[in-house]
Amino acid sequence: MSTAGAPLQVLLSGSFSPADRDDWLAQLQAAMPEARWWRDDEAFPADQIEVAVVANPPPGRLQGLPRLRLIQSLWAGVDRLMRHDTLPAGVPIARMVDPAMNAAMAETAVWAVLSLHRRFFDYARQQQAGLWRALPQRRADEVKVLVLGQGEMGSTAAARLQAQGYPVSGWRRGVPLAPLLAEAEVVVNLLPLTGETRGILDAGLFAQLPRGAALVNLARGAHLVEADLLAALASGQLRHAVLDVFHTEPLPADHPFWAHPQITVLPHAAAATDPRSASAVAVANLRALRDGRPLQHLVDLQRGY
Amino acid sequence: MSTAGAPLQVLLSGSFSPADRDDWLAQLQAAMPEARWWRDDEAFPADQIEVAVVANPPPGRLQGLPRLRLIQSLWAGVDRLMRHDTLPAGVPIARMVDPAMNAAMAETAVWAVLSLHRRFFDYARQQQAGLWRALPQRRADEVKVLVLGQGEMGSTAAARLQAQGYPVSGWRRGVPLAPLLAEAEVVVNLLPLTGETRGILDAGLFAQLPRGAALVNLARGAHLVEADLLAALASGQLRHAVLDVFHTEPLPADHPFWAHPQITVLPHAAAATDPRSASAVAVANLRALRDGRPLQHLVDLQRGY
Repeated sequence: MSTAGAPLQVLLSGSFSPADRDDWLAQLQAAMPEARWWRDDEAFPADQIEVAVVANPPPGRLQGLPRLRLIQSLWAGVDRLMRHDTLPAGVPIARMVDPAMNAAMAETAVWAVLSLHRRFFDYARQQQAGLWRALPQRRADEVKVLVLGQGEMGSTAAARLQAQGYPVSGWRRGVPLAPLLAEAEVVVNLLPLTGETRGILDAGLFAQLPRGAALVNLARGAHLVEADLLAALASGQLRHAVLDVFHTEPLPADHPFWAHPQITVLPHAAAATDPRSASAVAVANLRALRDGRPLQHLVDLQRGY
Repeated sequence: MSTAGAPLQVLLSGSFSPADRDDWLAQLQAAMPEARWWRDDEAFPADQIEVAVVANPPPGRLQGLPRLRLIQSLWAGVDRLMRHDTLPAGVPIARMVDPAMNAAMAETAVWAVLSLHRRFFDYARQQQAGLWRALPQRRADEVKVLVLGQGEMGSTAAARLQAQGYPVSGWRRGVPLAPLLAEAEVVVNLLPLTGETRGILDAGLFAQLPRGAALVNLARGAHLVEADLLAALASGQLRHAVLDVFHTEPLPADHPFWAHPQITVLPHAAAATDPRSASAVAVANLRALRDGRPLQHLVDLQRGY
């Protein structure tokens, strides 16, 4: 590792709570003490910043940084970042690929599929009603699961589900979706949000599933057409949905999902980036930049992820 | 396979619903059509019965069968059967070891541990309250799980939990328990019920766990001292319990567990024997008896399982 020359000048910018910001900064500094780290709420030298490490930075924050050579996201999803029309042109953007976050997402997927397969949501409602009734038990190998998205998160979730005995198929763009939908009893969405995937979970998709299928949306709220979900639950085409993400977050107090007996609401908690492992991943990219080695997990601006 | 000689005479006896009895009989007959199968609600030839295939048979039902050579249980737990003081002396008893049931039990164990680790019971309560709040996320390798029981079910559950990334220790009788309890954040009980294990989940055991540990009882209600659990939850020594089994089943309508916010009640549904696979297992033992080969899964009358 070369330590010659001036330290890399890095700006940390995001919509963190103060405690989270301090935690991230401490982890990042510990992982790369040889860099000079700046917070965006202090007087940082805009004309010297070479890297912006970001987590939902305020619009415009990344302008006026003439020496900026890399935008490293701390979040896996960069759809909000990509919507900024003040992103500096020509600066590469790297996504976060955090093994701890991938594992957490797979845990949530396994929990949701087990809950649906083994009727644990139904048992929770039975407990509330004081009802003692064992429901029919099926084997895992009888419950086909379709994972939408074959990135790091989709692949990890699919592997964990297979280890639990589920027949799992995976889908990514460019592959025919209809034959996979026709067989899927549970659909787990882990797609990136792009122009192509926005609203993909709609009445047309639900209609191609077997009657009584279930939906697990762990990706982005804008993947789902909320009115179509409510209609599919009401008609019996879908029997349950586990939703971690929503069009508006926090989910508004008067939203019909909160009290819907066939919808399990999670508060965007399916998988958080872990500052310990994610700092190491971010710093590996910063050192690659400094040393002139290839950068990892770069966003394809055309695809949008 | 020898098919010479008279067919094996088999009595099916249990406290089934009529539909379940018909399902079991159909599966067993299909698995061993060369035997003569009798139901205990028809006029069976008591002096010819060689094998009783049982699932909680009425007390006394197994008396007066002079040629009985094997009692094959369809259930994994034989504690109720062993309490009968009218069991015929000297007749070997075989437990059911059903791979589908082992897998189902492991699924429930994984679901319960994921729910506790990732706070999904808390999120369910938050949804009821309309509360949007992500809770701190820990890695699976930070959550130590102790599985009590290292039989087929305990071993299968431990392996599945390890595959999810949990550090798992297993306990069986004869091994010091205190050091394992001192580290266990979640205790999963899969012990057989015997004189030694009755009431093992009591205040003394809870006190040896780290404060805020959780309990998952999937074995027998009589393993648990219910009043001690309520006290441990009230004091904060335990934070949550997932219970599938109870002293009295169905759990009485006025029982305090039903409405307890820190207790998840399942209606003895953690794992059902699957007639398809269990019939094959039972029939393998019947053919071994007929052909003079060693019997599998025999109960040790001294140990009680």
